[in-house]
Amino acid sequence: MPNIPVTTRFGQYTVSVGSGILGSLSTHMPARGGIFLITSPEIWALWGERLRTSLAPKEPTVLFLPPGERHKRLSQVERLVTEMTKAGADRSSVLIAFGGGVTGDVGGFVSAIYMRGIDYIQIPTTLLAQVDSSVGGKTGVNLQTGKNLVGCFYPPQAVIADIELLRTLPQRELRAGIYESIKAGLIRDEALFRFIEKCREAIDRGDAASLEKMVATSIRIKADVVGEDEQELGVRMILNFGHTLGHAIEAATDYRALLHGEAIAWGMLAALEISRQRKMLTSDEVRRMQKLILYFQPPPLPPIRPKRLLHVAAGDKKNRAGVRRFVLLQGLGNAVVVEDVTDAEVLAAMDSTRQLCESQ
Amino acid sequence: MPNIPVTTRFGQYTVSVGSGILGSLSTHMPARGGIFLITSPEIWALWGERLRTSLAPKEPTVLFLPPGERHKRLSQVERLVTEMTKAGADRSSVLIAFGGGVTGDVGGFVSAIYMRGIDYIQIPTTLLAQVDSSVGGKTGVNLQTGKNLVGCFYPPQAVIADIELLRTLPQRELRAGIYESIKAGLIRDEALFRFIEKCREAIDRGDAASLEKMVATSIRIKADVVGEDEQELGVRMILNFGHTLGHAIEAATDYRALLHGEAIAWGMLAALEISRQRKMLTSDEVRRMQKLILYFQPPPLPPIRPKRLLHVAAGDKKNRAGVRRFVLLQGLGNAVVVEDVTDAEVLAAMDSTRQLCESQ
Repeated sequence: MPNIPVTTRFGQYTVSVGSGILGSLSTHMPARGGIFLITSPEIWALWGERLRTSLAPKEPTVLFLPPGERHKRLSQVERLVTEMTKAGADRSSVLIAFGGGVTGDVGGFVSAIYMRGIDYIQIPTTLLAQVDSSVGGKTGVNLQTGKNLVGCFYPPQAVIADIELLRTLPQRELRAGIYESIKAGLIRDEALFRFIEKCREAIDRGDAASLEKMVATSIRIKADVVGEDEQELGVRMILNFGHTLGHAIEAATDYRALLHGEAIAWGMLAALEISRQRKMLTSDEVRRMQKLILYFQPPPLPPIRPKRLLHVAAGDKKNRAGVRRFVLLQGLGNAVVVEDVTDAEVLAAMDSTRQLCESQ
Repeated sequence: MPNIPVTTRFGQYTVSVGSGILGSLSTHMPARGGIFLITSPEIWALWGERLRTSLAPKEPTVLFLPPGERHKRLSQVERLVTEMTKAGADRSSVLIAFGGGVTGDVGGFVSAIYMRGIDYIQIPTTLLAQVDSSVGGKTGVNLQTGKNLVGCFYPPQAVIADIELLRTLPQRELRAGIYESIKAGLIRDEALFRFIEKCREAIDRGDAASLEKMVATSIRIKADVVGEDEQELGVRMILNFGHTLGHAIEAATDYRALLHGEAIAWGMLAALEISRQRKMLTSDEVRRMQKLILYFQPPPLPPIRPKRLLHVAAGDKKNRAGVRRFVLLQGLGNAVVVEDVTDAEVLAAMDSTRQLCESQ
């Protein structure tokens, strides 16, 4: 079982990756504080017994967060922390976030602000949450005016990425996570990209050994990048490869048309086009990268007026003081951040990407 | 103008204390980010022009928070951050909290969570906020189930404690802050206690020079204690002298009967009684301390059933895993934390304190 150390300026923690490792959970539990658990009703129905067993003889207080991005709001945070106070949570309590990205983001934020911070353990149950949100200490919720606009940097005490949990994940969600792993390879690790290319079939059918290797490698890459730059001021920006337009696609379709990972898949395809236009990638390289992304069949790019996309992208919070940053590729495994991508380049890339989509 | 360095594990900042120092504000402003300001309508009516002048030619975006503890809620936080996004605040923006404790606590929390943290400057306009909440990096809001139950440790970039702002402070609020300064003397600095004793008349009428010395010394004491223990695990606990019962008095009267500082005054008087019962203080010492606190005429202790007080005190979040911690005095200027105060001791002390109140 790989244990991946993650270093942040608030301390170090470990992400454990393996199949059937939920049993190691009890080693992270406090001697005297209560255990609180935030999860979704769906996950609890599937895996609740298993989790209870691994915590026994301790009994967690279970709090439910309905699934879906629209519940990632301060009103839910207020409800959850109020329930915790009523159930007697204090500073020595520990909170477990057991679910996908929304559960992790909200659970982490609740842990960050409950009595100004309590311990928390993250148990991501989706592939996307395992490879993406388990590293970096980002927590938070949405506002009506945009996604993830409030939150904290607050690393967990530990993350347990149990590959077995992916068994019950719908294939569409599995694939949404695979795109993030492909991203990790594209920006930083040619070997990971090649591994996914080689094992694409096994990965796509949820083979545990292949997934474990892909997850562990993706986490290691993210941990490296985040360790260098925890507050997203420099190199961490490369993790946003595909995100400038991916976020814009999500926002322009009210987060309803695509899963986050799927929007990122299309955002990456567009960023590859810009990289090709700038001759930072050869046409052959781009074709190979496109081929792997499209192998996992992202749902079609939803219809969005190009002007609308530009407008939404301009409001992205990743734009510091009006500068639009774009992550492009200068060869496989090598991402660079540029600030001079023009509207015309974006429009041309979206146009090519749409043609690519229609040719599928 | 004294500049008091405050060290926290998240970095260092300076509290500037002086009369008419608002002008130094512009030195803290960013070169390119926007300036956002949270204040109350009352403070803005009194001091808005002055603040605008000191920021010119920059224009702040002014956001209002209604005065009073009942607005220290997540719903107000959500409204404020949403307004900020609409007005274009980004990660390079700076937020100024310009008001009393509620404004500082909410403004600090908004800064802590807006896009996972932006710079903020605190300009406390009440004596209590200057001596108490300007040091320590505590931010947060209330829940229906209790005060300050959610928040962050998030130190400001700078605090500007302008004594001139106290000119427009109602006398009752001035006195509510004086009790916190007396507390600082009692727990850690005999010289400060003697200074307040000697200059009590000048302080009570708002003499700027006396207030400046009292404020600067109180801040220095708190900065020392907090610097030793930013996360309130050890020595910082002594700052809670008078707070176990003070908070209980506030909570049992729904925060309506007394100002926070006034409740702390009565909480300190009760803690002095317990210290006397335990022979940690002589009767002469206690009389001298009582005399100074009562000189500033706290409003009468509201009627509260003793059982109710005990019940409320048991729910105080300062009680880690069920242990009731009490700060007592072992002589003037020397606070100690004990864990074995019994209900009977509390009831006896509250009884004596009520008699003291009735004899005034």
